[in-house]
Amino acid sequence: MEHLETDERERMWEKVQEALLNDQIDQFRAEFLEMHPYDQASIFTDMDADVRRKVYMYLSPEEISEVMEHIDYEDVEPFFSEMDPRLASQVLADMSTDDAVDILNSLDKNKVASFLTIMDDNDSDEIKDLLHYEEKTAGSIMTTEFVVVKANQTVREAMLHLRREAPDAETIYYTYVIDEDKHLVGVISLRDLIIAEDEWLISEVMNERLVSVAVGEDQEEIARMFRDYDFLALPVVDFQNHLLGIITVDDVLDVMEEEANEDYSKLAGISDIDSPDDHAFASAKKRLPWLIILLFLGSLTASLIGRFEDTLDVVPILAIFIPLIAGMAGNTGTQALAVAVRGMATGEVDKQGKRKIIMREAATGLITGASCGVLATVIIFFWQQDIYLGLLVGLSIFATLVVATLAGSLVPLVMDRLNIDPAVASGPFITTINDIISVLIYFGMATAFMNLLT
Amino acid sequence: MEHLETDERERMWEKVQEALLNDQIDQFRAEFLEMHPYDQASIFTDMDADVRRKVYMYLSPEEISEVMEHIDYEDVEPFFSEMDPRLASQVLADMSTDDAVDILNSLDKNKVASFLTIMDDNDSDEIKDLLHYEEKTAGSIMTTEFVVVKANQTVREAMLHLRREAPDAETIYYTYVIDEDKHLVGVISLRDLIIAEDEWLISEVMNERLVSVAVGEDQEEIARMFRDYDFLALPVVDFQNHLLGIITVDDVLDVMEEEANEDYSKLAGISDIDSPDDHAFASAKKRLPWLIILLFLGSLTASLIGRFEDTLDVVPILAIFIPLIAGMAGNTGTQALAVAVRGMATGEVDKQGKRKIIMREAATGLITGASCGVLATVIIFFWQQDIYLGLLVGLSIFATLVVATLAGSLVPLVMDRLNIDPAVASGPFITTINDIISVLIYFGMATAFMNLLT
Repeated sequence: MEHLETDERERMWEKVQEALLNDQIDQFRAEFLEMHPYDQASIFTDMDADVRRKVYMYLSPEEISEVMEHIDYEDVEPFFSEMDPRLASQVLADMSTDDAVDILNSLDKNKVASFLTIMDDNDSDEIKDLLHYEEKTAGSIMTTEFVVVKANQTVREAMLHLRREAPDAETIYYTYVIDEDKHLVGVISLRDLIIAEDEWLISEVMNERLVSVAVGEDQEEIARMFRDYDFLALPVVDFQNHLLGIITVDDVLDVMEEEANEDYSKLAGISDIDSPDDHAFASAKKRLPWLIILLFLGSLTASLIGRFEDTLDVVPILAIFIPLIAGMAGNTGTQALAVAVRGMATGEVDKQGKRKIIMREAATGLITGASCGVLATVIIFFWQQDIYLGLLVGLSIFATLVVATLAGSLVPLVMDRLNIDPAVASGPFITTINDIISVLIYFGMATAFMNLLT
Repeated sequence: MEHLETDERERMWEKVQEALLNDQIDQFRAEFLEMHPYDQASIFTDMDADVRRKVYMYLSPEEISEVMEHIDYEDVEPFFSEMDPRLASQVLADMSTDDAVDILNSLDKNKVASFLTIMDDNDSDEIKDLLHYEEKTAGSIMTTEFVVVKANQTVREAMLHLRREAPDAETIYYTYVIDEDKHLVGVISLRDLIIAEDEWLISEVMNERLVSVAVGEDQEEIARMFRDYDFLALPVVDFQNHLLGIITVDDVLDVMEEEANEDYSKLAGISDIDSPDDHAFASAKKRLPWLIILLFLGSLTASLIGRFEDTLDVVPILAIFIPLIAGMAGNTGTQALAVAVRGMATGEVDKQGKRKIIMREAATGLITGASCGVLATVIIFFWQQDIYLGLLVGLSIFATLVVATLAGSLVPLVMDRLNIDPAVASGPFITTINDIISVLIYFGMATAFMNLLT
């Protein structure tokens, strides 16, 4: 079962398609079920609606649920809509509860209610419990399909229990241990379990010093814990230390991807990276908000420069350096912003203290500003043979880089302090703010020293 | 063993520090070894050099190796330098081979040679084998500490073997099956193994359809496979399908973090996100390369605008819209760049075809360009009471956004095609290219229609 290359996928696709068109059920099931669910999903999503309808007939709800688990939950809605509601709710019930909840959260409220009504009480209760948790918290990414053993069981009893539960559990490599009141009291890895003697008590072999997370914990913090501590699974508890669910490392990989995409989109000023199936209108819709905000901020910059019209009339050559100065201000701000945002994401900022970060950024701005300022002065002096113009641009770049570097790091740090979503401090916003600052510095200085420039 | 909060870490730090200063070996060992190695590492790196020297005395090489495995391998060099070389090579030998290799790759060549000379032959051979693999490939992130079983063993024999090997293996949850010639022929999960009957043959219960990766495979592609297929481990093979090593999911979490940081840094135009311990000079060094390139590109823009000096002399008000137009061009280019780069990273671009992506970007540029162009015309008409100026800026924005959107997606796609590292197409580069394009469009149009503007 290799990771399918494009041409290999095409070949499989044709085989599957052919079997479906000729209604060769056995042939189709043999070909299709042999693949990894991820490949099944990618072939399934490429099918026409009438071909998919056959898939719904030829596969069991459980087999369909495997396919659905491997489609991005945001793209899954049309498939559930075209299934018979009874089949749809059965498929949902057969999925891992955490995946089912992700999908239900992206569906219409009425549809969710009707699916849950049709569903077996046991399954719908499990799902309803999870639906309450806020998005991007431990509760929303945990699964309730885990195996627990009791502290007073023997290793033999625990192993028997594990063997029975293995087929349904999300992982059996870590088994959590509870006491009579269902409090989480320990963890035992399958590794330790198979090394232990059959007659030992779980309470003797379990590890009592275990890491758990609160059900409301942010998913980004959880991803960080998996990365730092090399966990394969983490238990989720309520405030009384009752075990509510577990988070497994495969879900954390998705969280990391999601968070990285989010940071990246913010820096680029898009509300969300385009999904592959987006058409131009959908893409434009994600990009226009920022462009329109920038249009207004840019008009503000224009009106600010307009106030220096007299200066521009006297020294029109000033205009040609506007993009240079604004561009450097914008870029240095983005650099500082990126460092601050990543620092907050990886937790380094908290550890270091914000004050220290800001002091370092100020010093960095002084160094980069002085280097680029001197270089700019030299370039312009040799090019335009005008030392005052060179000094004006050089000094403007120096002042601009210091201020822009500070702004780039201060804005996200202050927003974080004020509990404002630092999304507002995204790349283009900082860039435009720094455009405005740089233009004010440049024209302010030019106006002050105008007699030297003419 | 909770994830230590800052104040908790401080408290632990003081206890450990105190025990060390008073040479209470047992006290220190009890406190220190009770923590998770990640927390040990974070306390250890905060110590003064003379305190650390005591740690080297009071811990065994194996205990020190656990600490070292949880420090970023780029920051570990000073610690190995201050250890006695004999201790250092022992610590390296006790580490997971993949971690040891990461560290050795970041050390001075001479030092590496001397460590390997002191080391036990067995250990140094394992490490030497791994040192040959190129950075960021499967070979560089795999470990050679894995358990294999033979296809003709029984489940009972395999379990016995596993129990014996468990303490040293990186994972025992997936066991790989080899034939007489050491070819990889199957995989069996511990889950399946504990469910199977003792007398069954491994060849009967193993899964023969397994996914493996070539030793030269790119680590980003490997991360994608773990994410898509929910693996906990993957076997690495040579071109003859000999099993060389395994990659475990905990290393993939680090790879994902590294790749996300890399993409993010490129977009912001920094050679590398600052490490927390960087001082201002180190930060400035990472940011200056791009700023200096931008300074030269910006001078080019300035000299291009200089060619339109006559136009500027006649219509000086043109200058005030330069930042607006250049800013929008820069931003729309960054948006398109971000979408293309993420699309390539997640593999969606390959799946969709580059042509389709470019067509979509062109259409997106037309939509955003038309919207912003009309809006700009209206704003400037009402503000400046000059319909021709409004039309000039509006049309410039329209043309600029179309071209800039295309440039933002074309440049990385073309570079990828030419096998050039798309790092060159980072955010500030695209922004500056689009600055130049936008200024040319704007002043070109203004010069052509100058009689309408005066």
